[in-house]
Amino acid sequence: MERAQRIVRHFQEELDLLKERLLHMGGLAEEQVRASIRALVERDHDLAQQVLLNDNPINHLHIDIDERCFKLLALHQPMAADLRTIVAAVKINTDLERAGDLAINIAEAALRYLEYPPVKPLVDIPRMADIAQGMLRDALNAFVQGNISLAQDVLNRDDTLDQLKNQVFRELLTFIVENPTTTEPSLDLILISRHLERIGDHATNIAEDVIFIVSGADVRHHSREPGEGSA
Amino acid sequence: MERAQRIVRHFQEELDLLKERLLHMGGLAEEQVRASIRALVERDHDLAQQVLLNDNPINHLHIDIDERCFKLLALHQPMAADLRTIVAAVKINTDLERAGDLAINIAEAALRYLEYPPVKPLVDIPRMADIAQGMLRDALNAFVQGNISLAQDVLNRDDTLDQLKNQVFRELLTFIVENPTTTEPSLDLILISRHLERIGDHATNIAEDVIFIVSGADVRHHSREPGEGSA
Repeated sequence: MERAQRIVRHFQEELDLLKERLLHMGGLAEEQVRASIRALVERDHDLAQQVLLNDNPINHLHIDIDERCFKLLALHQPMAADLRTIVAAVKINTDLERAGDLAINIAEAALRYLEYPPVKPLVDIPRMADIAQGMLRDALNAFVQGNISLAQDVLNRDDTLDQLKNQVFRELLTFIVENPTTTEPSLDLILISRHLERIGDHATNIAEDVIFIVSGADVRHHSREPGEGSA
Repeated sequence: MERAQRIVRHFQEELDLLKERLLHMGGLAEEQVRASIRALVERDHDLAQQVLLNDNPINHLHIDIDERCFKLLALHQPMAADLRTIVAAVKINTDLERAGDLAINIAEAALRYLEYPPVKPLVDIPRMADIAQGMLRDALNAFVQGNISLAQDVLNRDDTLDQLKNQVFRELLTFIVENPTTTEPSLDLILISRHLERIGDHATNIAEDVIFIVSGADVRHHSREPGEGSA
């Protein structure tokens, strides 16, 4: 019995550590997005370059988290909600790595954009970045807390992001038609808005995983108390 | 001993069934990509509409495969290579669902494109589609066969896809600058080429998972015989 308790505690500690690492990785990805957009808005060439050089910590965490998930699955053979949580962690890990990649893509597009005079004052794109970063942060918090209503809230924000993306697209289309010399920098802004939309999609994936963990466990236990009786 | 053998056989049967389902789902996703591009090239409005209505089977398979993976993990508590295979199946399932979504995005862009006169004869985009479909097919075959050299071959083809995407972009940029009235349909072609590139990315993800399953098991066992000693 004592040994079983030790194993359970060890498992919970490992699971908490895993969640902590995912939060840390999410923070790094968010920071990369923020820096890439600041580089774009403040026309800061050096900062954009720095984003390009900054993806190593995220890539290392990606491998570390994947290994932790496999160890937890292999050594503890978790069931029900714990199993769903760890498999979700594998997926979330992938989503965060992609979000980091998209920050790199934004920085690359920003560097191209900075070779031209500014097309327009940037308003919608920084707003999109704020929303996407908030979605990423809240989706991860929803995962760590098992908070289904926060996850639902993340899903609702995706529409705003989509509308802003369409607004950016229509506006820049008019710019291109009226003044074809702005075609290249305008297209880079369109691309950046799509990268931000995809970061929102990754946050949406995470939020859907959270809902699946909580409600999936619920269904399996035929319980009306979310979270009750799992593990 | 007899019972243990029955469980092992049952596990292998379930694993084979899981792989079969993934192949089936990959086939459906590939078919959707093919149809969306044919609708674009042959200016077939009805076919594009059909692609939009055709995503239900893929979505059902996505749920079915996810449930199979969880059952295999929970009931059989597999180790080493089998564990990696099933976790990879969860990821591959997500990649195939996204590839199906991208075929829908292509069909939507095709419908917008068909509202305008053709911008140019389409050569590079159908070529990109062929490559992306082949990558998807071969990545799945590499998974089912545990074929690491086929997986490597898929990774190598990603560069060609990337070059074609850049070629499409540069060509259509010139069209837009020279004749701004083609801006909207040209941008839709650019978007379609990016959707195809992302389908290639999903195939790349699958190929990387295959390499991870095979070489990961190898490293873990410190064995020089790939696949040996895993269970």
